[in-house]
Amino acid sequence: MAKKLNILMFSGEYDKALAALILANTARQIGVDVTMFFAFWGLCLLRNPDNTDMEGKSFYEKLFSAMTPKGPEELPLSKMNFSGIGKAMMLEMMDDNEAPKLIDFLSGARKKGVKFCGCKLSMEIMGIDKDELIPEVEVMDAQQYLEDALEADMQLFI
Amino acid sequence: MAKKLNILMFSGEYDKALAALILANTARQIGVDVTMFFAFWGLCLLRNPDNTDMEGKSFYEKLFSAMTPKGPEELPLSKMNFSGIGKAMMLEMMDDNEAPKLIDFLSGARKKGVKFCGCKLSMEIMGIDKDELIPEVEVMDAQQYLEDALEADMQLFI
Amino acid sequence: MAKKLNILMFSGEYDKALAALILANTARQIGVDVTMFFAFWGLCLLRNPDNTDMEGKSFYEKLFSAMTPKGPEELPLSKMNFSGIGKAMMLEMMDDNEAPKLIDFLSGARKKGVKFCGCKLSMEIMGIDKDELIPEVEVMDAQQYLEDALEADMQLFI
Repeated sequence: MAKKLNILMFSGEYDKALAALILANTARQIGVDVTMFFAFWGLCLLRNPDNTDMEGKSFYEKLFSAMTPKGPEELPLSKMNFSGIGKAMMLEMMDDNEAPKLIDFLSGARKKGVKFCGCKLSMEIMGIDKDELIPEVEVMDAQQYLEDALEADMQLFI
Repeated sequence: MAKKLNILMFSGEYDKALAALILANTARQIGVDVTMFFAFWGLCLLRNPDNTDMEGKSFYEKLFSAMTPKGPEELPLSKMNFSGIGKAMMLEMMDDNEAPKLIDFLSGARKKGVKFCGCKLSMEIMGIDKDELIPEVEVMDAQQYLEDALEADMQLFI
Repeated sequence: MAKKLNILMFSGEYDKALAALILANTARQIGVDVTMFFAFWGLCLLRNPDNTDMEGKSFYEKLFSAMTPKGPEELPLSKMNFSGIGKAMMLEMMDDNEAPKLIDFLSGARKKGVKFCGCKLSMEIMGIDKDELIPEVEVMDAQQYLEDALEADMQLFI
């Protein structure tokens, strides 16, 4: 039976999302089943930049939507972001080493069959609709997350 | 035999504490045993706002005690806190969705029998006495934490 | 057979590194095998302060090397660092309680046989050579990390 990796993606930062998605891609390459559960800031990573639907949102939800990153490439670094200068430098350094970008690891994970789940409660609080996220996302509550995670061989909170 | 969840609560931020306590409450609801080990900033979550005992504290311990959050509702957000404006907005959004507050999830966890442990070394360094914390807290050292965590079905560092 | 603990050290902060190394030391004391995999900012903890080799580095790599902490004692706190004042205060409080420093826990972990691994991709992107790190470090890729972690009894992302 295949081993299982479960990642709770809570943070919405470029470097942490990169770490999580590199692990998810690598795990799939060695035949490990991967579930990623996106909660709170982590949901920003799954936002579809072309589909930010403001209709039906409350004032706070609109403000929140406008102030948070729209999709993977807008995420800041967790350190030394310096209003984006540090991140630009990091991207240059990745480029110099021909390392793929976050968006490439995200599409790799989508192609390789990583299971993407969005936290129901976070989506309700932040006013994020399912159709604002990439289509693979399944909406799941904390109980479903726990049931999956408890059966996994390893769990990370990132 | 019941499954076991072990959470090392290191961070002292409202959103991360919310995530941890939602998981702890949900786990108890499906019959999973839960140990939460509070270390460093995580201890701020367990402070009893009505009992900040300054007697016997050194100068630094007093300063530290005054500068750190006193209880769950004082914790800042990990992102977009904006001196409390972002947090107030998040609380409004939670309210609009009739989501319970952090303090509600904390009292839920206390009622449902989550095991609360405080890190001995952190308490010594920060000068926090057992009677400054909620009464359920058991003081535990790193070895006791590890022995509990190694027997658990899943462990998270939050 | 000995139990196994695997820590992915992603953060480069004094307090988080302290937590990780206290766990690693304690685990070794009770006969638990420990692998620590250092990625991204976590690599700063392993830098040898006496051997920062700028030769062969690109402009960005030099800048990055100069801007990031050189070794354990230069790491900032994750909160309340206040340009180092908060950290100095924390160090005083540790001293008042005769608690060892980060550097002591690091050398303890080295003596007790904790396995130190450096993330290959992070080292390439950040332009860090093996000889800039403490000599115990083995360079490892994400697949080797996962294979080790999946066999462990507990895994933490710090």
